[in-house]
Amino acid sequence: MMSIFGKFFEPRSLAFLGASADPQKWGFRILFNIMTGGYSGRVYPVNPRGGQIGTLRVYKNLAEIPEVPDLAIIVVPVNAVLEAVRECGLKGIRAGVVITAGFAEVGEKGASLQAQMVETAHRYDMRLIGPNCFGIMSTPHMLYAQMPHAFPPPGPVSVVSQSGNVGFTIARHTMAYGFGCNKVISTGNEADLHVEDFLEYLADDRDTKVILGYIEGFKNGRRFYEVARRASLKKPIIIIKVGETEAGASAARSHTAALSGSDAVFNGVCCQSGVIRVRNLQQLMNVGYGFLCHPVPQGNRIAIVTLGGGWGVLAADACAKLGLQVIKLPPDVIGELDKFLPSWWSRNNPVDLVAGAPPDAMTRVIEILAKCEETDAILALGLPVPAVVWATADTAGEDREQKIDEAIKMLTVAFKNVKAVSTRYNKPVLFAAEFPVPRGDVRFQHRALRSLAQEGMICYSMPDEAAFVISSMVRYSKYLRPYGEGNTIT
Amino acid sequence: MMSIFGKFFEPRSLAFLGASADPQKWGFRILFNIMTGGYSGRVYPVNPRGGQIGTLRVYKNLAEIPEVPDLAIIVVPVNAVLEAVRECGLKGIRAGVVITAGFAEVGEKGASLQAQMVETAHRYDMRLIGPNCFGIMSTPHMLYAQMPHAFPPPGPVSVVSQSGNVGFTIARHTMAYGFGCNKVISTGNEADLHVEDFLEYLADDRDTKVILGYIEGFKNGRRFYEVARRASLKKPIIIIKVGETEAGASAARSHTAALSGSDAVFNGVCCQSGVIRVRNLQQLMNVGYGFLCHPVPQGNRIAIVTLGGGWGVLAADACAKLGLQVIKLPPDVIGELDKFLPSWWSRNNPVDLVAGAPPDAMTRVIEILAKCEETDAILALGLPVPAVVWATADTAGEDREQKIDEAIKMLTVAFKNVKAVSTRYNKPVLFAAEFPVPRGDVRFQHRALRSLAQEGMICYSMPDEAAFVISSMVRYSKYLRPYGEGNTIT
Repeated sequence: MMSIFGKFFEPRSLAFLGASADPQKWGFRILFNIMTGGYSGRVYPVNPRGGQIGTLRVYKNLAEIPEVPDLAIIVVPVNAVLEAVRECGLKGIRAGVVITAGFAEVGEKGASLQAQMVETAHRYDMRLIGPNCFGIMSTPHMLYAQMPHAFPPPGPVSVVSQSGNVGFTIARHTMAYGFGCNKVISTGNEADLHVEDFLEYLADDRDTKVILGYIEGFKNGRRFYEVARRASLKKPIIIIKVGETEAGASAARSHTAALSGSDAVFNGVCCQSGVIRVRNLQQLMNVGYGFLCHPVPQGNRIAIVTLGGGWGVLAADACAKLGLQVIKLPPDVIGELDKFLPSWWSRNNPVDLVAGAPPDAMTRVIEILAKCEETDAILALGLPVPAVVWATADTAGEDREQKIDEAIKMLTVAFKNVKAVSTRYNKPVLFAAEFPVPRGDVRFQHRALRSLAQEGMICYSMPDEAAFVISSMVRYSKYLRPYGEGNTIT
Repeated sequence: MMSIFGKFFEPRSLAFLGASADPQKWGFRILFNIMTGGYSGRVYPVNPRGGQIGTLRVYKNLAEIPEVPDLAIIVVPVNAVLEAVRECGLKGIRAGVVITAGFAEVGEKGASLQAQMVETAHRYDMRLIGPNCFGIMSTPHMLYAQMPHAFPPPGPVSVVSQSGNVGFTIARHTMAYGFGCNKVISTGNEADLHVEDFLEYLADDRDTKVILGYIEGFKNGRRFYEVARRASLKKPIIIIKVGETEAGASAARSHTAALSGSDAVFNGVCCQSGVIRVRNLQQLMNVGYGFLCHPVPQGNRIAIVTLGGGWGVLAADACAKLGLQVIKLPPDVIGELDKFLPSWWSRNNPVDLVAGAPPDAMTRVIEILAKCEETDAILALGLPVPAVVWATADTAGEDREQKIDEAIKMLTVAFKNVKAVSTRYNKPVLFAAEFPVPRGDVRFQHRALRSLAQEGMICYSMPDEAAFVISSMVRYSKYLRPYGEGNTIT
């Protein structure tokens, strides 16, 4: 028998309650997204008025539908939700996504309606996502049952979010960066199923390699902790938790009726459960991609190599502030570098390649630093290809697109060589670099990032971003090592 | 008579010492950048071997040059620099940029050579930028006497940086975002002219509206303070100061021989001089653009309007953490909003427009919040045009480019309307929003940002970024008000 999560994320058929032919209404737009997204299961739009929407027949009620759909998407007006859930239950539908808003987030009357809705569902063994949510996405099944008109391709990132718009911000970002995403779950008010239920599911979901979460508050903090500590051992969980301030907590209450709870308690929960807490969306995505692309470091000792002095200083500061140890280079490493770096090189960490070094210096330095037993991670600043590659791609000629493609191919190969080094020594090598923008054309950077992502690689924009990712991976690594420092697994 | 800074940044002619025909050498590449950049003054390449580089005659020595050039760009090998400076002095050249490295940053011998170089220059009333720098850019004069192959158009941002690569990272960013830059000064080891000399110059430079700085350490901290407190009254100065940690300070020493000094002292200097200190490059640029696009807020009371609940919560948290006051909405504001928002709207700050509001709701809410006497700044999350605009531009048809242009035009007009409101009430209205990426095409966002920048407008990517910009402007505003809280001007 199909599990309840199978019915939500791998449904063979779905009923769409509240279907509309009016393009201004969510009852049209979400249905439109389901069809545009390419969902291959059977779709049964439902509206008491019947008729047609495009080529789809609209059913007047669930009884008319010739099978029991795996899933119901519920977009009916708030005062019709209770009856819709009851009808679903009677039909035998076991999984429902209630997108409609107007429940606990608007006050006591809504909270009472919400409680009745859950009670009704449970009477029929039905489980609910929402209400007051953006819907769900399950890309391996081309299911885009959601408000936003965005269709990321399948990828390794899954998202569970108490805010629909934040969830889809992340989903769009995975698309733009070329990684793609797997499941996106907007949990809304969490009347029935909670964020921790989805963590538990995603931890065992083979297609999900990393879980990103946005949380406003917990319905069951204890269970979150128990689920998270087990799930963290299976894959990294990175979470942004808002409501740190009274202003944020108040905003969260009117948003999803969430009670933010004590921020200090949540920090403690994260420390003890291996959850990686971040403070903004950019960090959330950066750290997620970091885990996708790199082995976990075994400690906090960092070596930096840079094509520019200032970037090196920024990186050293950022690493040290985050508790990473910018090591003193051992004499044998200095000796090896002396063999091919110009006599005036800094002999310091960061290793500064600013001028006079051979064209392949960065790759060679990375290998020497990775081989060194006193490093746990390498941070490389600048791209591992000579600048002349960009200059020659920066032409106005007819063969420009081809030259850009060639430059990107060279870059991708150079990154692959570094990745091979990283794999050989089982140490992360993170890059941060500016991409040249020949003639102001950002497509170049965009294409390059997508080409890298295809091969499971990434280049961050700023040195402090990469340092933050390494420090987050170091924290996670401590959690994974059973007898490691700071570890509390029992 | 032309001031010394006029000779550096508005030279009518320049001598280029160390010219080379070898494309691998800086003596070629920097000269190539000068010519590519379109400098319209007279250029005199100098190399003892004479000959030609492209169509340019190479002079064997300075004596051969038929005039006294305003400026010398010095790229000769380190052991030839002293003699080059002496020859410049003899020729009557008063301004020199020494790009060559190998001085105080490599040790005592280099430091001694550096001291001799300055002594020689001063004997002839010559002033020096560098050594160990990337050169200078002065876009109104199309002067790109610099290592990097990047040509930002003229714009209101000037940059003074003790790191060449950081300085040009910023310059490239101003280009990508459509603002452009004015002067970029890579100060290198600051053997003669220091960062504070350029602050003083840029404070009175009509073309410079905002000054961005990267600092590793001070040669004369007292003078920096004196200059900065006067300059801050004329225009905003935003600075990233590295060497906060021992790792960073050590990296700075090998980079430009800078002594980072006490971080706490620098914080004090910033507080008392109106300098806005930021902690990373993204903040540096974000805050700079903020000042270009917005009036300075008169206090710290913020109202937020959002198209998505989660973004609103993130923004409220970010504002509160930065010391901004997320105000309680006054009853009359709630009353005015009640007139056109759906009955279930949050009645809270952030004002959440998630569903059911009219298409022009965001612009109307912004006006009401700006008019309210209890706000000092407005933060708007989401774009002020209906989502359907993007959906209809997201076609694969032949008229796609045109549709994108139309959507961008609509967006720009909507932003202009908001800007008019901001001007009317003299309050900043900052935007943060995701740009849709129709069919994964980032050109859309890029073009939109450039279109906004043309009109002196910006949309930030993340809510916390915009909150940070507002908080920085609030700090600056306190400095400007003579009897305001926290002000120490005497």
